[in-house]
Amino acid sequence: MIISMKLHSTQAEVAAVCERIEHFGYKIHTIEGAERVVIAVIGVGDVTPCLESLEAMPQVEKAVRITAPYKFVSKEYKKGRTRIQVNGLEIGGDEFIVMAGPCSVESEKQIMESAEAVAAAGANILRGGAFKPRTSPYDFQGMAEEGLKLLRKAREATGLAIVTEVMSDADVPLVAEYADILQIGARNMQNFSLLKSLGKAGRPILLKRGLSSTIKELLMSAEYIVAHGNKDVMLCERGIRTFETVTRNTCDIVAVPVLHEMTHLPVILDPSHATGKRSLVAALSRAAVAIGADGLIVEIHPCPEKAVSDGAQSLHIPDFEKMMRSLQPYVELWKQARMTEAPVAV
Amino acid sequence: MIISMKLHSTQAEVAAVCERIEHFGYKIHTIEGAERVVIAVIGVGDVTPCLESLEAMPQVEKAVRITAPYKFVSKEYKKGRTRIQVNGLEIGGDEFIVMAGPCSVESEKQIMESAEAVAAAGANILRGGAFKPRTSPYDFQGMAEEGLKLLRKAREATGLAIVTEVMSDADVPLVAEYADILQIGARNMQNFSLLKSLGKAGRPILLKRGLSSTIKELLMSAEYIVAHGNKDVMLCERGIRTFETVTRNTCDIVAVPVLHEMTHLPVILDPSHATGKRSLVAALSRAAVAIGADGLIVEIHPCPEKAVSDGAQSLHIPDFEKMMRSLQPYVELWKQARMTEAPVAV
Amino acid sequence: MIISMKLHSTQAEVAAVCERIEHFGYKIHTIEGAERVVIAVIGVGDVTPCLESLEAMPQVEKAVRITAPYKFVSKEYKKGRTRIQVNGLEIGGDEFIVMAGPCSVESEKQIMESAEAVAAAGANILRGGAFKPRTSPYDFQGMAEEGLKLLRKAREATGLAIVTEVMSDADVPLVAEYADILQIGARNMQNFSLLKSLGKAGRPILLKRGLSSTIKELLMSAEYIVAHGNKDVMLCERGIRTFETVTRNTCDIVAVPVLHEMTHLPVILDPSHATGKRSLVAALSRAAVAIGADGLIVEIHPCPEKAVSDGAQSLHIPDFEKMMRSLQPYVELWKQARMTEAPVAV
Amino acid sequence: MIISMKLHSTQAEVAAVCERIEHFGYKIHTIEGAERVVIAVIGVGDVTPCLESLEAMPQVEKAVRITAPYKFVSKEYKKGRTRIQVNGLEIGGDEFIVMAGPCSVESEKQIMESAEAVAAAGANILRGGAFKPRTSPYDFQGMAEEGLKLLRKAREATGLAIVTEVMSDADVPLVAEYADILQIGARNMQNFSLLKSLGKAGRPILLKRGLSSTIKELLMSAEYIVAHGNKDVMLCERGIRTFETVTRNTCDIVAVPVLHEMTHLPVILDPSHATGKRSLVAALSRAAVAIGADGLIVEIHPCPEKAVSDGAQSLHIPDFEKMMRSLQPYVELWKQARMTEAPVAV
Repeated sequence: MIISMKLHSTQAEVAAVCERIEHFGYKIHTIEGAERVVIAVIGVGDVTPCLESLEAMPQVEKAVRITAPYKFVSKEYKKGRTRIQVNGLEIGGDEFIVMAGPCSVESEKQIMESAEAVAAAGANILRGGAFKPRTSPYDFQGMAEEGLKLLRKAREATGLAIVTEVMSDADVPLVAEYADILQIGARNMQNFSLLKSLGKAGRPILLKRGLSSTIKELLMSAEYIVAHGNKDVMLCERGIRTFETVTRNTCDIVAVPVLHEMTHLPVILDPSHATGKRSLVAALSRAAVAIGADGLIVEIHPCPEKAVSDGAQSLHIPDFEKMMRSLQPYVELWKQARMTEAPVAV
Repeated sequence: MIISMKLHSTQAEVAAVCERIEHFGYKIHTIEGAERVVIAVIGVGDVTPCLESLEAMPQVEKAVRITAPYKFVSKEYKKGRTRIQVNGLEIGGDEFIVMAGPCSVESEKQIMESAEAVAAAGANILRGGAFKPRTSPYDFQGMAEEGLKLLRKAREATGLAIVTEVMSDADVPLVAEYADILQIGARNMQNFSLLKSLGKAGRPILLKRGLSSTIKELLMSAEYIVAHGNKDVMLCERGIRTFETVTRNTCDIVAVPVLHEMTHLPVILDPSHATGKRSLVAALSRAAVAIGADGLIVEIHPCPEKAVSDGAQSLHIPDFEKMMRSLQPYVELWKQARMTEAPVAV
Repeated sequence: MIISMKLHSTQAEVAAVCERIEHFGYKIHTIEGAERVVIAVIGVGDVTPCLESLEAMPQVEKAVRITAPYKFVSKEYKKGRTRIQVNGLEIGGDEFIVMAGPCSVESEKQIMESAEAVAAAGANILRGGAFKPRTSPYDFQGMAEEGLKLLRKAREATGLAIVTEVMSDADVPLVAEYADILQIGARNMQNFSLLKSLGKAGRPILLKRGLSSTIKELLMSAEYIVAHGNKDVMLCERGIRTFETVTRNTCDIVAVPVLHEMTHLPVILDPSHATGKRSLVAALSRAAVAIGADGLIVEIHPCPEKAVSDGAQSLHIPDFEKMMRSLQPYVELWKQARMTEAPVAV
Repeated sequence: MIISMKLHSTQAEVAAVCERIEHFGYKIHTIEGAERVVIAVIGVGDVTPCLESLEAMPQVEKAVRITAPYKFVSKEYKKGRTRIQVNGLEIGGDEFIVMAGPCSVESEKQIMESAEAVAAAGANILRGGAFKPRTSPYDFQGMAEEGLKLLRKAREATGLAIVTEVMSDADVPLVAEYADILQIGARNMQNFSLLKSLGKAGRPILLKRGLSSTIKELLMSAEYIVAHGNKDVMLCERGIRTFETVTRNTCDIVAVPVLHEMTHLPVILDPSHATGKRSLVAALSRAAVAIGADGLIVEIHPCPEKAVSDGAQSLHIPDFEKMMRSLQPYVELWKQARMTEAPVAV
């Protein structure tokens, strides 16, 4: 950490800051610059409490962190990739993963039809929401446990693993009973009570980036889960909120190689929420493969105009099949890159 | 709702859209424009499911909502202001309210000293966090029930009402036992499980706007609470996230009169989180009074550099006292405006 | 255009709005909704003046535009793609275009070395700035005409076409004398004096999207150029400004297929400014090819740490060569898609 | 400047960085941290070229600037306030300034009526655009010199000073002939050719903050003008672009005290563009006075629904008069604060 003092600070003011730093057990290196004093703080461990304390001192101009505030999720902690085993699949490894399914579980017919289409197209995991976070209290809130039971039925019929959202720490044990992967939605990325409860969930986590969360905050939320005992976390870029309104969100696709530089965790891209528009999903999916994502999570529906949620961004089943075929040569290139290069993003 | 068809839509495509609208029970008014067909959808109630269904139809260019998606929180539902009674105070009425206190409850000495300063300066309500949402799992997470007990002690000693944060639906009954007002933090504004549980909390709610939440989304979250049974909700502008980094957040101060045009609920401004910097708090507080906010929530601390959180934005007690005195003439003008004008924001 | 009246508008208020609409020569269609009156405005031509006038009337709640505010650049005006001929190349056609070179022209040695590397790697066009927009008045402002002369020399030596920036309407004739393509920088996207002067420039234009410009605003700026007489405009996505600071900008890669749905103009992607970081350029370039961009504009430098500007995002020449080879199979897939599909983005 | 090396950098890599720093003539202070090497760079003058060079070196993790990149506009360069003399007025001094008038000059009748209203209400300066930056090429582009002549006429009739926009360096001499203050619009804040030409304009400048410009970039643009010879610059906060769409822009009102901490230049607030909505202008104007702005620039119109631009945000004349009266007690408090405190924002 580097502390920059205000211009014209007195020796007493510098001494007060140094004393405060030493109170936290760090070593000090004082530098007399051309215009002001700069203090280097040397030591290991989480410097946040010290940093916040110094920022509160009136004579301090600025405190700059040098080391990352996360540990377990960093590349420096673990070389190589985290490979997550789910139902015979490996996420973050040498296979490109496709998760697909409807936004919400709506009925047995709808989820079974979807699941069969997902399996037939060669995708790996079935998505479908039983607990739905909705902006309006008047919108469909999900089928709850009834929906989870239908997902289990689809799992039994097709052999697909299940990813589904959990919205409250109270529901974690219930959802973990039915699902192979627990999804944390964008609006809950900093629901810290929920994050803590995932440590003991016994299931891998798909953690979606918040609408206006920085990449560092996404990593800090993953750190919560790992620090509480669950190291199987995959991250998901699903678009961030910006001033642009032509698309539902703005896909920060570069977050994929950025995350691969910063962390060993797998990175999934959600082209459906990132665009909000069916006609853009295939093009963005190709780009996601090309940029080196570990997988996709895509919304499809047997009849999008009858979907209770997200119909406009859900692919019709034939279009999903067509997209899966069109992705094939890109996935081949992806595999070649993954085998020869480390990391992909260079 | 207005539906704009794509250019060159066929009669059959228009008919398919009309059929879908009638399925939801609405009436239709078709207009042949110079270039395309536009369909007006006429009817009452929540049009969201119909709107989403139509957006999912390929021949639809755009669907535009005319009526607001919220009901109970709108000015059209209730004329006049919602006045919330707390411990002999009225929030949203004829008195300007100041809530103040430390970010976190840290010790008996710290909270008692703070509470006495708050009371002595003429402020009305004591704030202090016992459950703390922190970006890092390694930062101080709050004293939990121990902290709530200290808040009760401070309440007994000073007579001040207490506002404190609740982070999980599981904790609502516990926090409601100790607090006069339950605060929902910015990161939980769309934690819908939590919002639903507040309907039966039996305490007024201070709902903070999310970091990247629109004003409409803030109102929809308030609608959740009211629709689940609790009509005593106050809204809080605390700064939004933008590209500007000189301040911690960007205060959308105009949200205050905008909200007063859209809703009957009181609007509180948090100058501490909105700026992140102690030296800016007094100036922004004056502006908040001038623009017609119903109150302030301000962070203070007996010794900010020893605060476990938010020290840089916490006022020293003497500066808080000075600020309270300097606000006085603005509060006088506020009272005159409130008595003569309806609403203030005109 | 659809006009939504305020709740409880009187007949006289509706009549006043209708009268105002008729003043502009449009036809009217009045719809009595369940709660409010909605007026459909029917007619051709630019409705902006009418729309703005109606928005200024107190009884109007909202005015919603149905038709796009641009004409020449829209798909509805021109089917097929705009193919721009430059020096024997076709931009927007069946070849993927790569423009590359240093941020600034710095010396004869530097630009000649760069040009030779660009040609040797199989790229098509040389970039290099002679007039530099710099945030600080103390930074290098470009070599001006001296730099243009060096670009001409590089052109003669390698046969590469030249793209270079023009910053002021006064400089357009000078720059047009030396350059094959005139580049308009992000900060000048809404410099309307400059845009107007490009109508008679006699050179194709590479128009970069502004840091916080919407896709519609980008199209409106292109419309300025076309409406003033120059139909050879290519658009460039180069990253937008958001809250994320790990990358220099946030690449809105989905703008590529969105623009291909909205306009016939070619779309180029700039992976250097979009990321600000050398290590991310190759990955984003692959994604740009996969998503269907018409070309790339990339910064390279013989010795990035000695570059007077943008060194951190400039590729070393060997890395550029490596990237060009790695793009090859993606470009093959791009060509197949372009030949069989129309448009690529479906 | 502080350079943080990548983890596990070798001695040779550190030496290469040090050599590069010495090449720029700075002194070096190397610190062996617990995990990595940090290098403090000591010296005066603009460090940008050195910083950019270091960022381009692969072994450098991060380069952090300590000193501000601007000089003349900083508080450290000049104590006290810049007071700008215009037509017998002092901007940035002890009087609160109100500039008002229509968005565009449209006709003699319109501008004379407006000017008389401005003078009668006690405001100080007449605004009105003769050169109009418009998103669409089909919208009214201003009356050009004809409009300037009408402004001169209004000046002669009322004695009000004139502020009007200039959009191109070529037009600066012409506009300077008619205007007392030259306005640079938000979209031209980084039109560096224009900024340079203002150095010799011989008129004070009103520099509007760009839609997505940071406060530091605003100061850098002001630095351009001062460094080129014109020290009479006033800054204008007019709202920034964010995700919120209920208002036209988001007013970053805290920029006012932030700028007062960073610079000696006056700060004007534009409540019309900041909100885009007439009903919000008076409330925001009160807040601007309370927070310590040096003045306002407000749009008014004799008949807003007939305005060729910005009608929705233009005040009717009687509402402007009412607002001016309602500001009076706030202006009294402003004067008291200005006389007793230095600076106001503390």
